[in-house]
Amino acid sequence: MTSHIDLVARPSTKAQIIDAGLAELHARGYSGSSVEDITRAAGVPKGSFYNHFSSKEELAVEAVRRYSGMAGWVAGPDGGPALARLRNGFEALHAVLRGHQFSRGCLLGNMANELADHSDGVRAELAESLDQWSATVAVLVAEAQRNNETAATGDAYRLGRFIVNSWEGAVTRSRVARNDEPVEDFFVTIFDLLLA
Amino acid sequence: MTSHIDLVARPSTKAQIIDAGLAELHARGYSGSSVEDITRAAGVPKGSFYNHFSSKEELAVEAVRRYSGMAGWVAGPDGGPALARLRNGFEALHAVLRGHQFSRGCLLGNMANELADHSDGVRAELAESLDQWSATVAVLVAEAQRNNETAATGDAYRLGRFIVNSWEGAVTRSRVARNDEPVEDFFVTIFDLLLA
Repeated sequence: MTSHIDLVARPSTKAQIIDAGLAELHARGYSGSSVEDITRAAGVPKGSFYNHFSSKEELAVEAVRRYSGMAGWVAGPDGGPALARLRNGFEALHAVLRGHQFSRGCLLGNMANELADHSDGVRAELAESLDQWSATVAVLVAEAQRNNETAATGDAYRLGRFIVNSWEGAVTRSRVARNDEPVEDFFVTIFDLLLA
Repeated sequence: MTSHIDLVARPSTKAQIIDAGLAELHARGYSGSSVEDITRAAGVPKGSFYNHFSSKEELAVEAVRRYSGMAGWVAGPDGGPALARLRNGFEALHAVLRGHQFSRGCLLGNMANELADHSDGVRAELAESLDQWSATVAVLVAEAQRNNETAATGDAYRLGRFIVNSWEGAVTRSRVARNDEPVEDFFVTIFDLLLA
């Protein structure tokens, strides 16, 4: 019976640690979050951390993966105009930023700046997440090009990467400005000029 | 005689600490750099730090200011086409990034992600630096618009901010990708599409 409970409980402890770790890393950064902070926030014993992760770095890799899967970038439903679905995805992220008064930023950008030089594991996971997101944006740009929703003639994959990188830059600037202006600059320049 | 030497030496010690602090903060981040690391790198006694700075945070403000004054963004000489001078400024930064194999990133973006939520002093200095740089870019964009070097009709100040933010996003992505692609995406999209 006990071993049955253990088998059921273990994945849940790991998931609790990943969720709490994600929140701590997002709010305080990697250096600013200790394993003890994370297990305390998860409500699990500190020792249980090492049953699931060999290091804080390994947790950070998992937290980045989880964040990418649920970060709020959701393009609109298939069937509508591609540019409207693209805008919808960034508007959803904008609402999240506003909810945090432009603090915290994007975990991908934060971890990139803090860890890219120091952890190959985290860097590889960030590269994968950003590449996937860029490809999703590129597919929408390509659809908009095919349907003549945009006059932009550039390579859709390049535009996809550029748009994601520009979003990250806008988010960083919005943390400094503590207002919407960088995000508005992004929407106006991308949708009313670049993709018009 | 001793007091004369002190008077001459003090500003130099402060400048040494700022230069060493800038390099440490850029390479290791704020949390990763201790006052001891910084004074050791500067070759000055640890105690001398507090003759010049009340805290590591105050040093970070000064380091950001110094970086902004010398970060390598130098537009071409007056007189040439404005877009060529604008491109020249970013090419100079690109050469610096390449020199560091795309590690380190931009101190402004790094400090923004690490400290914007935690230090109002650093955040204010970053805001000032990014605003000044954006205004310099905007002036070149406006000149290009007046001289019909570009068909881009958007507000030059908005474009200036957008271009700076997109550069920062490209630099962050280049740390993850460890290659030129994000920077090439920036040059092609900004100069061949947005400002064409």
